[in-house]
Amino acid sequence: MEHKEISRAVIKRLPRYYRYLGELLEEGIERISSNELSERMKVTASQIRQDLNHFGGFGQQGYGYNVGYLYDEIAKIIGLDHKHTLIIVGAGNLGQALANYMNFERRGFLILGIFDKNPELIGKKVRDMEIEDISLAAEFVKKHDIEIAVLTLPKAGATEVVGNLVDAGIKGIWNFAHVDLELPDSVIVENVHLSESLMKLSYKLSRGEDLE
Amino acid sequence: MEHKEISRAVIKRLPRYYRYLGELLEEGIERISSNELSERMKVTASQIRQDLNHFGGFGQQGYGYNVGYLYDEIAKIIGLDHKHTLIIVGAGNLGQALANYMNFERRGFLILGIFDKNPELIGKKVRDMEIEDISLAAEFVKKHDIEIAVLTLPKAGATEVVGNLVDAGIKGIWNFAHVDLELPDSVIVENVHLSESLMKLSYKLSRGEDLE
Repeated sequence: MEHKEISRAVIKRLPRYYRYLGELLEEGIERISSNELSERMKVTASQIRQDLNHFGGFGQQGYGYNVGYLYDEIAKIIGLDHKHTLIIVGAGNLGQALANYMNFERRGFLILGIFDKNPELIGKKVRDMEIEDISLAAEFVKKHDIEIAVLTLPKAGATEVVGNLVDAGIKGIWNFAHVDLELPDSVIVENVHLSESLMKLSYKLSRGEDLE
Repeated sequence: MEHKEISRAVIKRLPRYYRYLGELLEEGIERISSNELSERMKVTASQIRQDLNHFGGFGQQGYGYNVGYLYDEIAKIIGLDHKHTLIIVGAGNLGQALANYMNFERRGFLILGIFDKNPELIGKKVRDMEIEDISLAAEFVKKHDIEIAVLTLPKAGATEVVGNLVDAGIKGIWNFAHVDLELPDSVIVENVHLSESLMKLSYKLSRGEDLE
């Protein structure tokens, strides 16, 4: 199916649809009407029909959407229909938390290595992986054709490490470090600045209005 | 100073300015020109001048901005000029990672308690806090006038716990649980849906374009 006609506004809503459709599948629900989905997602049924009609002739009156079909189609668009290989760079609390988070694996994000520069951490086991010396990360990326590096290290070391990973061919960075990375256009970055998120909450609490 | 005239577009950029100004202070830099700040932040100097001119007559030619003054003014707007009290609900890897993250404390976010329902975790120490039974969380919120609950627990238990916290007077939720919370309008929510963030990265990698 050709997806290029789907608007960016719809695309932006797909991860949320994907999450809800996944929950339905877990509950064993194979068909759902736009009204029922509207009820769950707190989105109008007409919005849902408009959004999901992009995916073919499903959702006829009284028949409902095929949950599994929609789930798979959305997965293809988001790029979840194939595996992604990851390493975690920075094995502190946050890095270990992400390494232990099984849901990523279920969605095809395979964490294959975890690295740190702290000698006290190196050799320690996280899940079924041994924490390795950060100086080995770039080589690992090359050897195992790693696509994504999860950056969970202090900003001090981040820039240098990232440079090495980019040279080694990393394609995407999921950045939890408190730094704005300067990267070639070919490398994709998704930032998770937790303290900025907390500041947004603080702003909303102080001002009673949203920052979005 | 009256801040109501500052546009939302500027407000949205404040957490990032705040981060950079904080870094300058750490480096002992007390004054900075719009050109130097532009260099660091990869934002045009004219944008910076436009944004920061809201904060009074600083930044004259050849004199530069007073870093500490701007930092404090922005803190006031974001609500970082006073302390916020927090509890963490869910003491798994992510909850413990956030509890151990000292930077939040430095910015006035005081984590006063951490709770879980897992008997194996209860009683264990995280930083200088003992993990307590989740059934005690609401009472703790009342007794210590807790403002913010950090939700780092599986979605299964989230809705019930949140209901109790709201009844106990919680004002804000920093939500890491994979669930869209239904809350009274008076309670402020900031969502961090990590798997949706990872999906955005996956989308960008697959399609070569941004979801923002």
